[in-house]
Amino acid sequence: MTANLPTSAARIEADISALAEITEPGRPYTRRAFTPMFLKGREWLARRFEAAGLRVHVDAAGNLIGSRAGRAPNLGTIMLGSHSDTVPDGGRYDGIAGVSAALEVARALADQDIALDHDLEIIDFLAEEVSIFGVSCVGSRGITGTRREEWLSRQSEGVTLANAIGELGGNAAASMTRNDIAAFLELHIEQGPVLENQDLDIGVVTAIAGITRIEIAVDGRADHAGTTPMGARKDALIAGASIALAVERLATELAAGPFHFAATVGEFRVEPNAANVVPARVTMLIDARAERRDGMERFLIQLRDSVAAIAAQTGVAVSALRVLSDNMPAPCDAGVVAVLDAACRSTGARHRRMASGAGHDTAWMARITRAAMIFVPCAEGRSHTPEESARPEDIALGAAVLLEAVRRLDKDLQEKP
Amino acid sequence: MTANLPTSAARIEADISALAEITEPGRPYTRRAFTPMFLKGREWLARRFEAAGLRVHVDAAGNLIGSRAGRAPNLGTIMLGSHSDTVPDGGRYDGIAGVSAALEVARALADQDIALDHDLEIIDFLAEEVSIFGVSCVGSRGITGTRREEWLSRQSEGVTLANAIGELGGNAAASMTRNDIAAFLELHIEQGPVLENQDLDIGVVTAIAGITRIEIAVDGRADHAGTTPMGARKDALIAGASIALAVERLATELAAGPFHFAATVGEFRVEPNAANVVPARVTMLIDARAERRDGMERFLIQLRDSVAAIAAQTGVAVSALRVLSDNMPAPCDAGVVAVLDAACRSTGARHRRMASGAGHDTAWMARITRAAMIFVPCAEGRSHTPEESARPEDIALGAAVLLEAVRRLDKDLQEKP
Repeated sequence: MTANLPTSAARIEADISALAEITEPGRPYTRRAFTPMFLKGREWLARRFEAAGLRVHVDAAGNLIGSRAGRAPNLGTIMLGSHSDTVPDGGRYDGIAGVSAALEVARALADQDIALDHDLEIIDFLAEEVSIFGVSCVGSRGITGTRREEWLSRQSEGVTLANAIGELGGNAAASMTRNDIAAFLELHIEQGPVLENQDLDIGVVTAIAGITRIEIAVDGRADHAGTTPMGARKDALIAGASIALAVERLATELAAGPFHFAATVGEFRVEPNAANVVPARVTMLIDARAERRDGMERFLIQLRDSVAAIAAQTGVAVSALRVLSDNMPAPCDAGVVAVLDAACRSTGARHRRMASGAGHDTAWMARITRAAMIFVPCAEGRSHTPEESARPEDIALGAAVLLEAVRRLDKDLQEKP
Repeated sequence: MTANLPTSAARIEADISALAEITEPGRPYTRRAFTPMFLKGREWLARRFEAAGLRVHVDAAGNLIGSRAGRAPNLGTIMLGSHSDTVPDGGRYDGIAGVSAALEVARALADQDIALDHDLEIIDFLAEEVSIFGVSCVGSRGITGTRREEWLSRQSEGVTLANAIGELGGNAAASMTRNDIAAFLELHIEQGPVLENQDLDIGVVTAIAGITRIEIAVDGRADHAGTTPMGARKDALIAGASIALAVERLATELAAGPFHFAATVGEFRVEPNAANVVPARVTMLIDARAERRDGMERFLIQLRDSVAAIAAQTGVAVSALRVLSDNMPAPCDAGVVAVLDAACRSTGARHRRMASGAGHDTAWMARITRAAMIFVPCAEGRSHTPEESARPEDIALGAAVLLEAVRRLDKDLQEKP
């Protein structure tokens, strides 16, 4: 099938391989935003954008943009993209696949000499991953009015975020919320195992899950492990282990419903963590993700009940659940989702709808425009690791879906945004 | 009642207070074996031994001994004692209470001009606690033929253990197993809550529990916490938490029987321990203590079964249980235990029999002689902490029990050891 696609797996593979070689010496796939290696990658990308006939600039928020004028500029911009920055020791595909696929759409349009009514922009968002300034989605938040003012004075190695944005060609003070974007599309590797396991080509994303992080501290009592009878203990680990199992059970119940839900105790620390001392304290961090807000609210209520019951049963003191962060789910635009479904059908891509459990720039773009995204399969769901792997043919098929969706949106969206 | 005792709470309190003041500057109750502060404490103790009419020497194994000749030296020695070294930031009573009580027995004998048939030795064992050389019970193992040869070449700050023993007056090369000891008695704070909770004065120890340390490693898979469906995970924390709860359940069942049993997951480490990553690996260390070997063996069999079932259920890989150390229980001498019961009755001490969950020098002395020990209550079972607390009156009553037991043993043991 790929032989008939208007998009080229070979060009995508060339993009990804070239960027993979631009990495910190001796470290696989490390191009953290704002570092010299990141700027080197962007420099290469800018040349690649230009080779596709795009006009390149860095916007005030620090995003790298390649643009192509449409026939009816007052219809606004269709924007496609993702991010080229990586986590430390990250993968070759996370973000990069989406930038390359977006660029491939521009190249395919040029190949076929197709003119659009809308302006087209290919975007490399600044710092989607948690950056050296400790914050993420800096670029997409910058153009959606959601970048916090206080972030700009954060420092890394003596430089403020505002200055770092300036150094790569932006102007933090001048960043403005875009109001000209008619639609936004992002391709990303799934970072999960669902498409691979179900032998599908494309996931059409219905929503980006909301993420809530909850801290729980369990205070037991440090007793001598040999001399304190089993019934006379306040063992913080036993209570903490019970809470971790309750999180798993509640999440599994919610995940059995129609909407995505997942919860994970990722951080779990025991004090004093000594062989012969009954654990005195456990702190844990729960990462919960819900496609629908009511799912998250149900989880929080049930978790509070479970934790109170465990505390009563084990005799430990449990702190009030501390919600460290609480982001709402971001539904994708229903109209664009329908267009993506149709584009999958017309390109012959085997597809399903699914929620994104991971955060993406699309979640921020959904605040200001019709936004949606598609997933392509990745091996074993691995991501944020050098073993991350996706097939160029799958990304090229995704790019073909994007191209088809762009052509449909270009026709459908005939009103000024 | 204490007013009628032949032993003095005031003298015991004076001993303990004086030693408490000999501590690392700014740190409460830190007199680790081999350090200058330890030597200062011993220097003070040696003067105190001499003031009680004892002849003082350091034996080849590095133990400080105060001795008093008996009327029939060929009957051998009745030895009493404990240790004066502490853990870092330890308590005032652990070990010290037993040394002071033993010394108080010698003082009470002198007060009343009581001659014994046996020689009497009051001993401050070297390095009962884990020392700066990483090993413990150095003195009691030194005179019981159980000190490992390879320990002597261990180094701390450039000095070998052998040289360190030499520097405090011993001679590691000359250490020999004592064969002249007719009986050994030790008083120690309980380090557990049983006596206080049951309002008792004395615990007559039937056995020092065997300690087995078991390491378990659980290998799951690091997956993205947001994108990996609940049913598609290999969460090492969920498996590890289930194992910790199984340890608690099995230990509680065994502890419901007639013999002491306790098991604790004291160390529990999660990797990568990151908020948004499904835990990939958990390592845990189980500390299990059994009064009877068959209890420990039953625990190990049941634990293996439980772990295998949890591994099968959660899809993780669990390493074979790795037994890091495995010490047999040390039963106290039944005859001496009966003498201690009788001594409690004749001094009016409310007593019970119990096992020691903690290790003690007595466990090693039991290899070479009739050995037994008694516990006195301590506040809330706290130990190895500056909050450790015991009442001088309780220790004086314990010393009176020891005194009575010594007089009975002196009469009963009329054959050469």
